[in-house]
Amino acid sequence: MEETGNPHPYVPTDLLLPDYVPPFLSQSAILCIYGVASLVVLSTVWVSSGFSRKIAKLDRLLLCWWAFTGLTHLILEGYFAFAPEFYKDKSGFFLAEVWKEYSKGDSRYAARDSGVVSVEGLTAVFEGPACLLALYAIATRKSYSYILQFAISLGQLYGTAVYFITAYLEGDNFAASPHYYYAYYIGANASWVVIPSLIALRCWRKICVAVNVADQKKTKTKSR
Amino acid sequence: MEETGNPHPYVPTDLLLPDYVPPFLSQSAILCIYGVASLVVLSTVWVSSGFSRKIAKLDRLLLCWWAFTGLTHLILEGYFAFAPEFYKDKSGFFLAEVWKEYSKGDSRYAARDSGVVSVEGLTAVFEGPACLLALYAIATRKSYSYILQFAISLGQLYGTAVYFITAYLEGDNFAASPHYYYAYYIGANASWVVIPSLIALRCWRKICVAVNVADQKKTKTKSR
Repeated sequence: MEETGNPHPYVPTDLLLPDYVPPFLSQSAILCIYGVASLVVLSTVWVSSGFSRKIAKLDRLLLCWWAFTGLTHLILEGYFAFAPEFYKDKSGFFLAEVWKEYSKGDSRYAARDSGVVSVEGLTAVFEGPACLLALYAIATRKSYSYILQFAISLGQLYGTAVYFITAYLEGDNFAASPHYYYAYYIGANASWVVIPSLIALRCWRKICVAVNVADQKKTKTKSR
Repeated sequence: MEETGNPHPYVPTDLLLPDYVPPFLSQSAILCIYGVASLVVLSTVWVSSGFSRKIAKLDRLLLCWWAFTGLTHLILEGYFAFAPEFYKDKSGFFLAEVWKEYSKGDSRYAARDSGVVSVEGLTAVFEGPACLLALYAIATRKSYSYILQFAISLGQLYGTAVYFITAYLEGDNFAASPHYYYAYYIGANASWVVIPSLIALRCWRKICVAVNVADQKKTKTKSR
């Protein structure tokens, strides 16, 4: 079968992407826009949460993380999950540009690998909104704050595990070069291994302490 | 490419399974052995947990579930995850027979679909041992009992979601007949949607109550 359209830069080179349209923005332009947008989100959350004296510094950092990761899930991953033909985009739409670029680190995005689409779909539909709920739960000190943060973090870890294991099982040959492999496939995903692990551990500990306190109170009440 | 060995009973029929060996046991024999083994596990846990007056009835039911699901994850799914050539088994080994039979409901097992192998691997390696830890945690009333049960249940739900979504994205055409589709693919997996959802909800509520109690105690201590 002859491939129509432009040749694509992805690996494996025999991947068929008919009507592929190369990105309009350079790598540095895409990273710069994503970086600046993220910085705007982070600084807005950091500064605005500083107005409340009730929110501790660690919680302000967590608010920043949940805003950043939540918007990434909803906007970036949400677009990918429901735009199977992003690689054909001719309009220069930024979100299509991002995935055209990221596919250099993992061509399964352009190839619409079912494992990747499943994980990204679950992340966008369930974890994205849940992250924004976590922002609200932390800011208003809801009793479900820890268990919600734990649930999202575990979902992120499970998703990342499926993401890496499926790639390994499929031959781990989806990056256009070692540069893209380490920068995109490993580097860009590392935060979603390290940070959710730390948050899950913290929530686990906080919840165990709370259960202990509640149990002691119950025992005291009973023994009176 | 010519296929060697026996023709297989799976769908899609053009799936290549060289050296496939048909099962030695009938469907009813396989289900009967699995059923009896499960009943032995369930009744052993139910009866032995009844000797302790400290363990409530609901907790005894939960012990039964964690023993059943934990052993299923460890033994059945553990075998599948690390036995890529089970369909070639000539010895009549029971675990190979189970997967030869189950593949009639979902041929991705015989075909070694990467999404299925990832989920089954994670389930066997992490969730199997964690289920047995949950047994210990419930029986000895550890403070991490709820959060552990919540974590496993969420993992089971995430795994089942990936399992169903990948099948849907790949065309949902892996069952040998509607009978196998509904009995194996839907029926056998339904418990791992319903029960983990109920347990996760219960743990969420229990944890929220405990956090509330602990928070109130903290506020009281501060205001004294």
